Amino acid sequence: MSAAPIAPARSRIAILGGTGNVGRGLALRWANAGYEVIIGSRSSEKAALTSAQINSELGRPAVGHGGYREAAGSAPIVVLTVPYAAQRSAVEEVADLLAGRILIDTTVPLMPPKVARVQLPSGGSAVAAIQEMLGSSVRVVSAFQNVPAHLLLDLAHEVECDVLVCGDDVAARETVIQLIADIGLSALHAGPIANSAATEALTSVLISINARYKVQGAGIRITRVPCRGHS
Amino acid sequence: MSAAPIAPARSRIAILGGTGNVGRGLALRWANAGYEVIIGSRSSEKAALTSAQINSELGRPAVGHGGYREAAGSAPIVVLTVPYAAQRSAVEEVADLLAGRILIDTTVPLMPPKVARVQLPSGGSAVAAIQEMLGSSVRVVSAFQNVPAHLLLDLAHEVECDVLVCGDDVAARETVIQLIADIGLSALHAGPIANSAATEALTSVLISINARYKVQGAGIRITRVPCRGHS
Repeated sequence: MSAAPIAPARSRIAILGGTGNVGRGLALRWANAGYEVIIGSRSSEKAALTSAQINSELGRPAVGHGGYREAAGSAPIVVLTVPYAAQRSAVEEVADLLAGRILIDTTVPLMPPKVARVQLPSGGSAVAAIQEMLGSSVRVVSAFQNVPAHLLLDLAHEVECDVLVCGDDVAARETVIQLIADIGLSALHAGPIANSAATEALTSVLISINARYKVQGAGIRITRVPCRGHS
Repeated sequence: MSAAPIAPARSRIAILGGTGNVGRGLALRWANAGYEVIIGSRSSEKAALTSAQINSELGRPAVGHGGYREAAGSAPIVVLTVPYAAQRSAVEEVADLLAGRILIDTTVPLMPPKVARVQLPSGGSAVAAIQEMLGSSVRVVSAFQNVPAHLLLDLAHEVECDVLVCGDDVAARETVIQLIADIGLSALHAGPIANSAATEALTSVLISINARYKVQGAGIRITRVPCRGHS
């Protein structure tokens, strides 16, 4: 998987907050899989640096960059990878551009300093709150909450974690599951967007397990499901 | 594991609601592992039948039965395996007997008919609400929320699901993890009782996955944790 495939750019993916660990890892993996990726950031300097690093790693100019609105307006798939505290303002900045698009929201409502303790946000799910805010014209899908970010950054490493995918629009979920399979991860339909409350809360459990068992990047696997989205 | 071990009765475990699937499965497994088990039920007829069935399966009188108060008052470990709608009243009935004891609460706040959709109870966790109700003199531990009940009933079958164990009292959690290891399941420290919100909610995700992928008894495994409670 470290060699760049020869597939042409199939579709464009905008990653808002693509200079953080989750965003960089996803940008790297989707670019490596043949997607055209544009990193959206509030810091053009950081975005330029991150995209240059990824392009250098891949040996070709697969990743571009721009502001949030430039990125979100140019792609049918928009991915949100900002910290919880910045989630709502980032979405508000691009909300009018999102109608008809798929918004993959990776937000986990961690509330420092007690990140190993479940502290549910109002309503239970940070992602469901965004679907409610945007209305049904935007196809919000929740994913990647439980994936250790540092594992995404290493193309040679298998990510030992199923991605639980929640969303009210089943076709959008299916599209996202395929996008995830294309970067070598196993993804599963996990129900409506309300179910994101479970995957978001589970992240604090995994952080607690990392600390207790002195491991890095505990993840989850769903057992007894032989058939699933996987590359 | 189907042969009865020769270990003497090490400790008594009371299982309230022991005539349901989870309760019967746990009674069978702990009795098989050498524990003295007493099933507590509001129906003495059902409790007598269930205990007779288990004793017959094991070939020895390992399981007794009684009312809720009789069972809870006679054991240092009390396990609650009643439906969510009956959880609070069952605890209220025995509350004055529980000081100093470990209460293992297996409750999942499913709200029929939409059991495949996360519907958080007030406060987020049904088990944390019980800890709050009882106060810190009772050592409440949350466990078994994600384990498919029918798998517990088959001694020959490996249960492919990690048990996430939450509780504010770390020593009580440790005791419960050992009790779980003794019946052949893998258990992990999953943090304070507040984290039970995650494991409870996850059950609806698993029910959703069962329906979507036409499987029975999807469970979870935590990855990248080599060292854990296991028999």
